[in-house]
Order: sequence, then C-alpha cells, then structure tokens
Amino acid sequence: MTDANQDTGEGPRPGPAFILVGPQMGENIGAAARAMWNFGLDRMRIVNPRDGWPNPKAVAMASGAGRLLDEAMIAPTTAEACADLTQIFATTARDRAMTKRVLTPERAMEEARAMISAGERVGILFGPERSGLESADVIRSNAVITVPVNPAFSSLNLAQCVLLMAYEWGRGEVPAEAEEYRLAGTRLAETREIDRFVERLVARLDGAGFFWPDEKRPSMVANLDNLFRRAPLTDADVRTLHGVIRALSEPPRARGTEQG
Amino acid sequence: MTDANQDTGEGPRPGPAFILVGPQMGENIGAAARAMWNFGLDRMRIVNPRDGWPNPKAVAMASGAGRLLDEAMIAPTTAEACADLTQIFATTARDRAMTKRVLTPERAMEEARAMISAGERVGILFGPERSGLESADVIRSNAVITVPVNPAFSSLNLAQCVLLMAYEWGRGEVPAEAEEYRLAGTRLAETREIDRFVERLVARLDGAGFFWPDEKRPSMVANLDNLFRRAPLTDADVRTLHGVIRALSEPPRARGTEQG
Repeated sequence: MTDANQDTGEGPRPGPAFILVGPQMGENIGAAARAMWNFGLDRMRIVNPRDGWPNPKAVAMASGAGRLLDEAMIAPTTAEACADLTQIFATTARDRAMTKRVLTPERAMEEARAMISAGERVGILFGPERSGLESADVIRSNAVITVPVNPAFSSLNLAQCVLLMAYEWGRGEVPAEAEEYRLAGTRLAETREIDRFVERLVARLDGAGFFWPDEKRPSMVANLDNLFRRAPLTDADVRTLHGVIRALSEPPRARGTEQG
Repeated sequence: MTDANQDTGEGPRPGPAFILVGPQMGENIGAAARAMWNFGLDRMRIVNPRDGWPNPKAVAMASGAGRLLDEAMIAPTTAEACADLTQIFATTARDRAMTKRVLTPERAMEEARAMISAGERVGILFGPERSGLESADVIRSNAVITVPVNPAFSSLNLAQCVLLMAYEWGRGEVPAEAEEYRLAGTRLAETREIDRFVERLVARLDGAGFFWPDEKRPSMVANLDNLFRRAPLTDADVRTLHGVIRALSEPPRARGTEQG
C-alpha cells in the first residue's frame, strides 16, 4: 500500500478519476484499465485491493493499458483516495435508504464534463465485485449513478460497469455528426451524373418496350428515378450502373466488339 | 445446426435481433446473452458457432439469461440468419474500403427504434472474436456501426461490443428525466418549512450577536438562507437542523430539562 501522494502520473488530459474500491480479482482491475483506456481515460485509483499491489493478474489482463496500473494511485481508504476531489459520483445498483440524487450514466457524465471544464476534480466510485459500495462511500458521494438495467435481470460486473461509464464519457467527446459516408477512393456522384444515367436507362427501357401500358409510363419512370436517388451513389457506382445497362441491353456480339 | 425456421421463440417484445456470426468461445456467447438480457433484449441468432450447438460453456456463462440461448435461432450462414430481416447493421471497427453509412451506436439504435416502431425487423451483426465480420457480411448490411474508441487503443471484445449495443438500446428506452431524489421514508421539505427554519436560525444568531457589523447583516442572512436552499432538503433534514440549532444554542441545563 503506497502513499496517496504518488498520484503524479495523472497527465494534463482532463477526465474523471475512476476509483475502484476494494476490488477482489486482479483480472477485473486489469479489465477495468482496458475499458477505461478504450475511451481515452487514464486516471485510475484503487482503494485497498484485496490481493495487494502490484497484482500480476491485473498486469496480465491490462495488456496495452498497463500504464494506467503503473500510474494508479493506491490508497488505504476511500477517504484518502477522494481527498483532493471536489465532486464524487457513486455507481450503485442497490436501492439505498438515503436521500441522494440518482443520475443515469449519460446525465452523470454530462455533469462530470461540465465540472471538469470548470476546473473541478471529479471521481467515480466503483464498489467491490460482490457487495458493491458500502453506505459510507455512497454517503460521501455527491450523487449516485445507476445504470438503467432490466429490473428482472441485472448482472453487470465491475469491468462492465467501468466500461459503460467510460463509454458514456467517450460518447460525449464525439461530435454529434459522427455519421459519414466512407468512400473507397471515390466521391459522391453529382446530381447531373445520376440524371444522365437515369435518362440513358429510361431510353434503353423505352427501346425495349418496358414501359407498358403507356399511361403508366410516367409513374414507372418516376419510381425508377426515385430508386436511384434513394441511396447516395458514388461516381464509381454510376459508372458501374452504366456498365450494367450496357451489358444487359447490347447484343453480346456488339459488346464483344467493344471490349475487343 | 438446426433449421432457421426454429426462430419461434421470439416473443412479441419488440427489439433488434443480435446476430453472432461465427462466434468461437462458448463463454462469449453466454456473456453476450447476459449483456443483452441486462437491457431487456432477448432475440439472439447465432451463425455457425465454431464449437457446435448447444454449447455447455455458453449455457454455464449465461446463467440467468439461458432462455436466450434456448430460443436462439441457429443458422448455417449469415444469409439465412438475416433472411427475414429488413434492416441490418454491421458492427465493425475496421476501416473498410467500401461506401457505407457509418453510425455511432447511439444513432444506430435511434434508427433501429424508429424502424422497429414502424414494423421493420432489425438485426445487428457481430463478427467472430478475432477476425471481425467478413466483407461479405458488411456488404449485406445497410449501415455500419462503429464504437468511437480511443484511436490509440481499441480492445473491445465480442461481449463488450454486445454490451454497448444493448446498453444503447436500453438507454433510449429510459425516459429522459431519469434523475430523481431517493427519499428514505420521507418527502422533500416544503418551502415554508425551510422558511421557518431559516427564520429561527437567524433569530438565534441575532440573539448571539452573530451578524456583525450591522451593515453586513442583510448579505450574511442572504448567504445563510441561500445555503439551505441549494441542496434539496427533506422534512426529516429540516427537523434534524432544528434539533441542531436547539442543541447548539440552548444552555445544557435547559436542554436537560426539555429532554428529561
């Protein structure tokens, strides 16, 4: 058990400290480190780990996120692990007989982000695997975070709970318009490119007597046109489609000549 | 390998099907079932599980969520597992050379919810542990879901990926105002109860010459008043505070008399 002052490894990157209180299995400590680092969080504190510290099983499991363990503050009590923090959230599934704000992970991480931006130092408490946080640690916290699980089945373990909190932290860091189109060395087709393709397709289909009876032609053309506007097409897609109608509509010999 | 038509276990409860493609470890299948059921999802499909089916390790790990395994559709190919679905999302971390919408889990589950409400049948594909989904399965999908992980460290495993998708599904099912106050057999204090307490406190402090110098009294009173309005207090809290000022301000003998 080392001194709480060793918490010098915390870099300038802002993020909440994740505080594992009395964790039992080294594997879970390692898995928690991985879960945190998956979402860019690197400030871990550990209160009174059951199997002492350092823990080889934690190190083995953390592979790739071992730095978090090397830099973790190890503290003998929750009070010492929280001493320098100004806002504490307690993760707990148990319904406790105390008056305390209960937040969803989303709401809690929004608050944490706002507080950290304002210069506050935020910690999230996670209880031991079996028993969860003691009441004293929940009382110490400013608010409770409860993951909204199926009331009929709640089996989140320590590393899963850490994962969800880290994910929620990371989710808020991503700009809202994360939707994008992946283009493989290409660009979205311009409207006139699609116009030209549809015109050509309609001409070929006219030639083949496709639009029948006549009075249905306008709606059939509109449907076809609409079909090719529904999904975004790239310039390469349009070239491919041109090839398709050529292949389908030209006699094999003509194509052979073209290709030869 | 049983027939895809055995998918009769899917109840009326609406939710996306989670389709595990070529899962290797039974433990991961079981953990995925638990992760799903934690958030009320119960429609699992499994494509060509490496170790056959049923899988005792999956059953052991799924404890409490075993029903999902019993009712899972087992299919020999992704095509058969997806045959009756109308919208497919592929979870993948790899950057693929194809043009496809890429959604965050949040956005994807919003779309899934809207589609399911409209009567569509939605599936989410999860690839094998090591290799992830094959390109053919990504192509089959209408959009890709990518969890926004730390670019320098991405180590999400199958069950963790399932957990995050299930969590995102569940998150949208929870009303926005999940914040609440937990009261231990009590209620929030009415404003007049706090008024009465603050008046009494101020009167006692006046009696003790606390507000000095005189010109500072208004701001000192306002600060005190504000302090007791900042956090929500219960009626029990207010009774406790009354007891505190009585205990602090009355001579020990008088209190002794009161209590005796």
